[in-house]
Amino acid sequence: MPSRYRSFRCSVPWLILLLQALLLLRSFRGFPGVSDTYSSSNSYPEFQDVNHMVIFGFGFFLLVLRRYGFSSTGLNFLLVVLGVQCSMLAEDLLVFLRGEQNEVGLESLARAFVSVTAVVISTGAVLGRANPVQLIVMTLMELIFFYVSRYINETFLEVPGHLTGMHVYLFGAYFGLALASRFPEAPPGLDKNRSTPKSELFSVLGTVFVWVFWPSFSSILPFFKMQAVINTYLALAVSAVAAFMLSALTSKDGKFRMAQIRSAVLAGGVTISYTAEHIHHPWIAMILGLLGSVITILGSHCVQRCFNPALKLQDTSGVHFTFGLPAVLGAVAAVLLRVVDDGIDTRWNELSRLGYDAFVYIGAFCQTISTALITGLITGLILNIKLLKAVHVSKYYDDQFYWEVSFKIISD
Amino acid sequence: MPSRYRSFRCSVPWLILLLQALLLLRSFRGFPGVSDTYSSSNSYPEFQDVNHMVIFGFGFFLLVLRRYGFSSTGLNFLLVVLGVQCSMLAEDLLVFLRGEQNEVGLESLARAFVSVTAVVISTGAVLGRANPVQLIVMTLMELIFFYVSRYINETFLEVPGHLTGMHVYLFGAYFGLALASRFPEAPPGLDKNRSTPKSELFSVLGTVFVWVFWPSFSSILPFFKMQAVINTYLALAVSAVAAFMLSALTSKDGKFRMAQIRSAVLAGGVTISYTAEHIHHPWIAMILGLLGSVITILGSHCVQRCFNPALKLQDTSGVHFTFGLPAVLGAVAAVLLRVVDDGIDTRWNELSRLGYDAFVYIGAFCQTISTALITGLITGLILNIKLLKAVHVSKYYDDQFYWEVSFKIISD
Amino acid sequence: MPSRYRSFRCSVPWLILLLQALLLLRSFRGFPGVSDTYSSSNSYPEFQDVNHMVIFGFGFFLLVLRRYGFSSTGLNFLLVVLGVQCSMLAEDLLVFLRGEQNEVGLESLARAFVSVTAVVISTGAVLGRANPVQLIVMTLMELIFFYVSRYINETFLEVPGHLTGMHVYLFGAYFGLALASRFPEAPPGLDKNRSTPKSELFSVLGTVFVWVFWPSFSSILPFFKMQAVINTYLALAVSAVAAFMLSALTSKDGKFRMAQIRSAVLAGGVTISYTAEHIHHPWIAMILGLLGSVITILGSHCVQRCFNPALKLQDTSGVHFTFGLPAVLGAVAAVLLRVVDDGIDTRWNELSRLGYDAFVYIGAFCQTISTALITGLITGLILNIKLLKAVHVSKYYDDQFYWEVSFKIISD
Repeated sequence: MPSRYRSFRCSVPWLILLLQALLLLRSFRGFPGVSDTYSSSNSYPEFQDVNHMVIFGFGFFLLVLRRYGFSSTGLNFLLVVLGVQCSMLAEDLLVFLRGEQNEVGLESLARAFVSVTAVVISTGAVLGRANPVQLIVMTLMELIFFYVSRYINETFLEVPGHLTGMHVYLFGAYFGLALASRFPEAPPGLDKNRSTPKSELFSVLGTVFVWVFWPSFSSILPFFKMQAVINTYLALAVSAVAAFMLSALTSKDGKFRMAQIRSAVLAGGVTISYTAEHIHHPWIAMILGLLGSVITILGSHCVQRCFNPALKLQDTSGVHFTFGLPAVLGAVAAVLLRVVDDGIDTRWNELSRLGYDAFVYIGAFCQTISTALITGLITGLILNIKLLKAVHVSKYYDDQFYWEVSFKIISD
Repeated sequence: MPSRYRSFRCSVPWLILLLQALLLLRSFRGFPGVSDTYSSSNSYPEFQDVNHMVIFGFGFFLLVLRRYGFSSTGLNFLLVVLGVQCSMLAEDLLVFLRGEQNEVGLESLARAFVSVTAVVISTGAVLGRANPVQLIVMTLMELIFFYVSRYINETFLEVPGHLTGMHVYLFGAYFGLALASRFPEAPPGLDKNRSTPKSELFSVLGTVFVWVFWPSFSSILPFFKMQAVINTYLALAVSAVAAFMLSALTSKDGKFRMAQIRSAVLAGGVTISYTAEHIHHPWIAMILGLLGSVITILGSHCVQRCFNPALKLQDTSGVHFTFGLPAVLGAVAAVLLRVVDDGIDTRWNELSRLGYDAFVYIGAFCQTISTALITGLITGLILNIKLLKAVHVSKYYDDQFYWEVSFKIISD
Repeated sequence: MPSRYRSFRCSVPWLILLLQALLLLRSFRGFPGVSDTYSSSNSYPEFQDVNHMVIFGFGFFLLVLRRYGFSSTGLNFLLVVLGVQCSMLAEDLLVFLRGEQNEVGLESLARAFVSVTAVVISTGAVLGRANPVQLIVMTLMELIFFYVSRYINETFLEVPGHLTGMHVYLFGAYFGLALASRFPEAPPGLDKNRSTPKSELFSVLGTVFVWVFWPSFSSILPFFKMQAVINTYLALAVSAVAAFMLSALTSKDGKFRMAQIRSAVLAGGVTISYTAEHIHHPWIAMILGLLGSVITILGSHCVQRCFNPALKLQDTSGVHFTFGLPAVLGAVAAVLLRVVDDGIDTRWNELSRLGYDAFVYIGAFCQTISTALITGLITGLILNIKLLKAVHVSKYYDDQFYWEVSFKIISD
């Protein structure tokens, strides 16, 4: 099928053009305030952790399919490094629109990494079913839509900047789902989307990385970093314990299920993301972690048995219950905590302030989720036009379609 | 055998109760001194390293058995996150008994991680032979006993707090050995406790992680952090070189043995743990590293050929010679160094002070090791009561007993 | 073949002697200025990153051969820990020759790690064809020659110390190539030097580690650390994107090639190494990263098809195009940038200064590369004398020759 491939090959130089555009746009200004960027050196370890988590952790977290190892890690790597550069450009634009000073530094890179996580999550939903060109186009479109959604939240709803960044899980998951609904289903007989013990082990390796680095990820944007770190850690610890517990409770024979556990140990981090720096009592963080794990495990049952078959949706690595549902829970918890906090602290104040705060939070949540769904659908439709030569379903989940493998793939 | 499983399954909700108790006990106080915990932010990278080392490093270090990969990493993860929470509670209790101020912060979490290492080490001794319920009960009991032992050392022998923490290897190893002696032996024909090249590679991966992060682990408790880091690094480097050298010398044909090397490269870190911050000459650290490696390699021969068969003891991942013997050596070295240091510095002083110091060190050592052995035996007896439904020997070292594996396990 | 082995086995105790010599030489002085070394604690995370990158990252980066996993990671580990100790000794000597104060600290360890990278790179060229004794002798000789070359650069050409350290890629690659030319070729029918999907995945794991930690590596020597970090990151990001792009463009059918991509994603880091702290415009860093990737991919075609067969050279893991060519490009770029910078800034100044600067850079480059080639050839000749019992070509690329493998190696 050389004709199909040719289109793929010819489209790759688009990257050059895109990159050049990025280069030129950014090249018109130098390093503003070198002394400034130098002074922010104490955030370097956190930046490095986030870098590691997104590229290494998520790359191997996605490595579940037995014949899709190269694409899982390799394409994740490509999309992240590409996305980070687009993200920095978008950040600059956002900063410019706000009328602030532009700056290239670790802060700007770290914010770019947080945004790129949306792309990584969406990739999980269409893992093995989208070709590299589709994924690159998706990356660009998703980042643009995510920044538009953030800009709306910041400008019209006046949500603080570091909170809008935390909508990244919600946006990524529902964008990915809407996108996945536009891709043809894999035939039921296909056995390439199974996992093997070895591929699961690599995935566990990635999951542990993501888990360990999550507190750095949660604390890179907030002001009260240490409180965010400790709360996130506690939420993650409780959700990890709960993941094992619930996995044993819900399976027959009381056996553990690795796929469920991999999703549920991370749920605490997603759930606490909105509120990590504002929680003043460790037990609230721990309960949020517990609830996150519960919603992931229960969600994985409901979603896989009822929701997905009903909508004819295939969500390869389960981003709906891994990132989507805990993010919804986290958003609800953020509203509740805000209302309770305000209600306790300023009991003498007028109630209108309370209502306004809740309204802003709920508004930002609804705006983000609806933007994600609508733009995801649009992107899904665009990605499946003939120009981009979608992969035939029989070629799903296969490295050999994208990688030149000189060695014989053995049948494990 | 549904009846066996049912007990396993029913016992899992104990975790919920336990966790709730932890939650409630901790929830009665908020974050004391948020500004205080925030100021300790410069220890964050070290905390992250220790977190990574214990969860990721030890998890993969233990992954040697060819059909026990999920349990090695997964259960290690579960026990660590559970143990850290119990540990924090115990730390609080210890702080309360000392009459000091309570504090939730990275320091407290880091101390909890150090204590949990005892559990991780003990797990290695019964790897593949204890079921999850037994391991969870073991975790709780071991942590309680370890904190009792630390409390005795600190209160009656007046050993400084950060030194009692370093008894963690000694306690973990001998607790694990005493525990393992109460478990039935695996039949000699069982071939599931072999390793494969792939499982060894994962184990090497974990070992390198533990090795690289060890200086962070050694320096998280002491006051003179940089000296502890450099001494630990030197000891580790020398013990790594010596490990390769001795492995080639002791095997026939001069070939290397990966299993020995994995144990011996870490020996330097265990040996230096008591004295890392007090050594003022690099060559002492290097000689300690060399001796640690020597005792591990020689120990592995003696222990595996004479000691274990005589006592009918099975020590799956060799914690006796990996952690036990180097810790004994380290304790002896600590006494000698203390005596020599005091002897040189205060030659004109009365000798009684010298004797008292040595007495305290030796007393703390004897108390720790005897507590570990006795409580290990008791725990071993408790774990093998009928209620906890020990695993039948034919089901040893097998993931399929605890994990729902939808894929076919291939025979590599 | 016991006679061959005996020589190998008998030579291992040389390590003891060597190590003892190191110990004794270093032991004559204590920790000078403990307060000083303690104050440098804020470089600890960077040191840890470099440690991790060299031991873990490169160890797994080299793990491409399907039956050479233990040796790739294990021997890399041994050579690094041995080399770091020799390096520290050489650093001390260099400092002593300069008449400065000696100091044991993280700085000194970090500088030692940078130098050891030369050994790691050279190892890649003879991977699977040199036995451990040859590799250990090579390590010692290479480090001595590298420090001689650095000393010449610093003393006679007055190049700043942190820039001479950056010649490590150039020296390592060309030393390794000259060395490899003295080793007998592997027979063409040998299939043990192929890779498998699993070994490639481990190698990807190592590559991602090296990539993520590269900014730490680039910034450990310079003064303007943050600028070096950001420039390195941008160069790496662009070269990663370009690696995927060029790999798809140059292969037939537009498929990606993992081996090429692994080399090319790192090219940006090598290319920018000389200039990372002096570049004031992000776009220059990005273009250097792009050019580095281009030269690696094009170089890999030319080198593997024309250059290596013509010279009957076997370069197992392609260090020529992975490290050698980008380093040459980086050196050229450093001269150009220096000239342009000086030309713009000091237009009114005499041109002689400009010429002198360029002369120094070019001189240092030529001196380094010629020293590397000549000493590499000499070392190659010494390593292949009968005393060191070179491996027979039929035993190339095989773990079983050096490692006691109790398990059966399966044929994957």
